[in-house]
Parts: sequence; structure tokens; C-alpha cells
Amino acid sequence: MTEEVSAARIALAEALADAARAVISGHFRRPLAVDDKSDLTPVTVADRAAEAAMRQLIEKRFPDDGIIGEEHGSIRGEAEHVWVLDPIDGTKSFISGIPLFGTLIALARRGRPVLGIIDQPILGERWLGVAGRGTLLNGAPVRSRRCAALERATLFCTAPELMFQGEDAAGFARLRGAVKLFRAGADCYAYAQLAGGFIDLVVEGQLKPYDFCALAPVIEGAGGTITDWQGRALDLGSDGRVVACGDPALAAPARALLAGG
Amino acid sequence: MTEEVSAARIALAEALADAARAVISGHFRRPLAVDDKSDLTPVTVADRAAEAAMRQLIEKRFPDDGIIGEEHGSIRGEAEHVWVLDPIDGTKSFISGIPLFGTLIALARRGRPVLGIIDQPILGERWLGVAGRGTLLNGAPVRSRRCAALERATLFCTAPELMFQGEDAAGFARLRGAVKLFRAGADCYAYAQLAGGFIDLVVEGQLKPYDFCALAPVIEGAGGTITDWQGRALDLGSDGRVVACGDPALAAPARALLAGG
Repeated sequence: MTEEVSAARIALAEALADAARAVISGHFRRPLAVDDKSDLTPVTVADRAAEAAMRQLIEKRFPDDGIIGEEHGSIRGEAEHVWVLDPIDGTKSFISGIPLFGTLIALARRGRPVLGIIDQPILGERWLGVAGRGTLLNGAPVRSRRCAALERATLFCTAPELMFQGEDAAGFARLRGAVKLFRAGADCYAYAQLAGGFIDLVVEGQLKPYDFCALAPVIEGAGGTITDWQGRALDLGSDGRVVACGDPALAAPARALLAGG
Repeated sequence: MTEEVSAARIALAEALADAARAVISGHFRRPLAVDDKSDLTPVTVADRAAEAAMRQLIEKRFPDDGIIGEEHGSIRGEAEHVWVLDPIDGTKSFISGIPLFGTLIALARRGRPVLGIIDQPILGERWLGVAGRGTLLNGAPVRSRRCAALERATLFCTAPELMFQGEDAAGFARLRGAVKLFRAGADCYAYAQLAGGFIDLVVEGQLKPYDFCALAPVIEGAGGTITDWQGRALDLGSDGRVVACGDPALAAPARALLAGG
């Protein structure tokens, strides 16, 4: 069987995370101008410089690969291999001095994520998922936990009030009412803890490909599942509503409540 | 002028934080039974053992001092000096693998908090505030930042949906609508970042003395303010609704919105 991701591209992914970590660490809890983007989300020089450093490495080592980045846009998006980059997922935490943000690095092959990294630069934690392999946290295997009953589950969602409107908000409220424990505000760090076996469900909406592509290989390689709200695998064309489950048995009951009970 | 807090009690406070840190670190991201308390909040052996370790040190060094603890109750509550302990503020984060919880240690003298510690065992961060002195983070001074306009402010609140009902919920919604950026889910870590100059406002409700007493010396020693929603200084009898401001100039407009605009 041919490996889906070459050793050279795995090495590049790690190099991208190293480069972003170096840039971001130098700006954490330092004076920093915060700009508002067109969607009114904040952005800083750290976001822009970290993505630029990663793009430069990709251009040097795999100049035919495509790139989709949160801050600097898309290039060669039709290539077989496309890197999908979010230099700082959780900029609101970053500018608030809270080390729950992360650098998200995905490699999509023919539109489907086959490698994902969640890197926390300040805590020095890196989750690496590669299709067909087990997920690693700083080189050590991690597994999601079994929890097949919603009434025993811990649910995270970064900001329900911003992510859901109308029917989606009603569906999320039903799910939130059914779980044991709900918590907001963790961005990609919640998905990493789901992969590690400490959280059972993360349900979010209005995500972009650079927010969700890196999550899939990390979660799937740890024994969990992540799909859209209809249960379809995530790809570059997904609509940005995701259901991540540590225990695959939670997925059907969670999606049923989201869809209307 | 006599110091309000003796060097021996400051040394004890640090020893309490060291003791709690040792206990809690050994349980983070390890398999752990989670019990539900009567108020349906979670508690673990780490909470109980960390508080027990702190109480033992107090009994040994200052046996006449009172103790109020979240997990093991009150003793000698009428003493001049009362230690107010929350071994893990943010147990929901703790059991979810997220290092935003903290150990809160306060010393109240005649009911008024004169020493506060916020300790993050996993990140190795300790904020120490003592009446009449500047707040220290791991020994280095920290200052809150200036931000006198609500429309430029960052607001945190751990869980508005659990902390506010009725008129309080309406007041909080007005405030949230007036600020630049809102974020949930950080427990005591948000107050520490306010002291450090990265967050402007934290507004919460339904706090207990062991949740809020340690915050006051940390925030006041960094140049900020923390009061109840009527602007009164916090003491052991406060009602558990707090407004913390990095810039004292934010306090009046924030309280006005909370009270009805």
C-alpha cells in the first residue's frame, strides 16, 4: 500500500509548525497592534508573519503544491496537494494573553484532508494526525475516550452565540440540554483535548476550511470522528458546520438532536 | 506604618500554593473519577486532596487562623485572619484537560481580603497580590492596561448563561453589546490576564467568597479595580456579583449598563 502522505511532506508540516511557533511565541503577551478584518475578527502582525513564514517554506520545498491561508489567500487551489493554514486559530485568546489558541496546518489531497497539525506554541504541544496512522502528541500516541451516552458527555463550542442562528441555534440548544457538561471558549484546543480523551463532543458552525481541515486527521487518528452535521466526511467544500465525537457512537444521537430531535 | 500582612503569612500563602500545585499536577490529564456535588458542579480527588494539604499547613503554622474552603467547609470563621481557599477554580476545565483553572488562596483580615494568589499549576504561573504592594507574576511586577472606553474593551465572563438570570442577564447583555470583544470560559485565568494588561473587564455572578476573595488583592495591586455591581469593595459578605476593570475609569460606565443603562 502506498502511503497517502510522503515522509517529505510530513517533515515539511513539522517545519511549518516550528516556523509558526517561533514567530508567534515572540509576540505573545507583548504590545501588539490589533486590526479588525472585514468580518470584524481581530488580526495581528503575528498572524500575518506566521503565515508568511509557512508559505515561504512551502514555496521552497514543494512549489507546485497549492496553499489556502486565512491571512494571505489562495494560490494553486486546484493542485493535487493543497496546504491549508490558519496561523493563529483563536486570535481572541491570543490577544487576551490566554494560551488556548493554536496553529492549524492541514494537507489536503484531492480536496480531502490527509494530514493535520494542531500546534500550541506557548505550551509546546503539537498534535499530529496523518491518514492511516495513529495521532501523536509530541510524539506519543493519544486516543479519544469511550462515552456512548449524551447524558454523560462533555460538550465544547467556542462561541455558540456567534456560530449558530435560527434552526442551527435551536438544534445546538437541544444538544446542549442533553449533555452533562458544556463549556465555551477553547477554539482548536477543544478538538485537541477530544483527541486526547478529555472531551467527548465539539460542535461548531461557520468554520472555514483553514479552521476545520487540520482537525480531521488528528481526531480520526485518535479513534474519533468528525463530519458535517449530515454525517459526511469533511473536505475543502464542506459547509463549516462540524460534529466531532471522541466516541463514534455519539455521532448519530448528536446529529439527530441537531437536526430536530 | 504596620504591614497588613506579615512576612510569615505571605510565606505561608506561597507554601499553600506550592502544596496545591504538587497535588494537582499529579492528577492533570490522568484518569480521574468525577463526582457531582449538590450544586451539580464537578469535583475530583485532586480538588479535595489539594485543599486538605493546604488546610494541614495552616493548622500547623497558624492554628488560630480561620479557614473557609470550597471542598471541606469552614472553621474559626470569626478569627481575625481567615484563609479562603478554592483548590481548583475551573474544575470543568481541569477535567477537560485544559490548563486554565487555578488555585485561589486569599487571606481575609476582619473580613476584607488583604492577600490573594492565583496559581496555575500546569503553566507554572503564580500571581501574588498583597495589600499595599504591587502585584507580582512569578516575582515580576504586572500592571493592568488603560482602556477607558467600553467600545474598545475586551470583556470576559466564564459562563453568562449559568451566572445571570432575569435583570442581571439583561444588564449583562447590555454590557456585552457595548464592548468590542467578548469571550467566555476562562474562570480565574481571565482575572489574572486582566491584572497583566490583556483583558479590560471581567463581569460575573453567583461567585462564592472562595471564588472572588483572592482576586481583589491581585487586581488592585496591578492598578485595577474589583467591586460588587454597586461599586462596593469585596469582602466575605459580598453577594457574589463582581465587576473587575483593568482601568478604573471603566467601572462607572460598566456598572451603569449592568444596572439599567
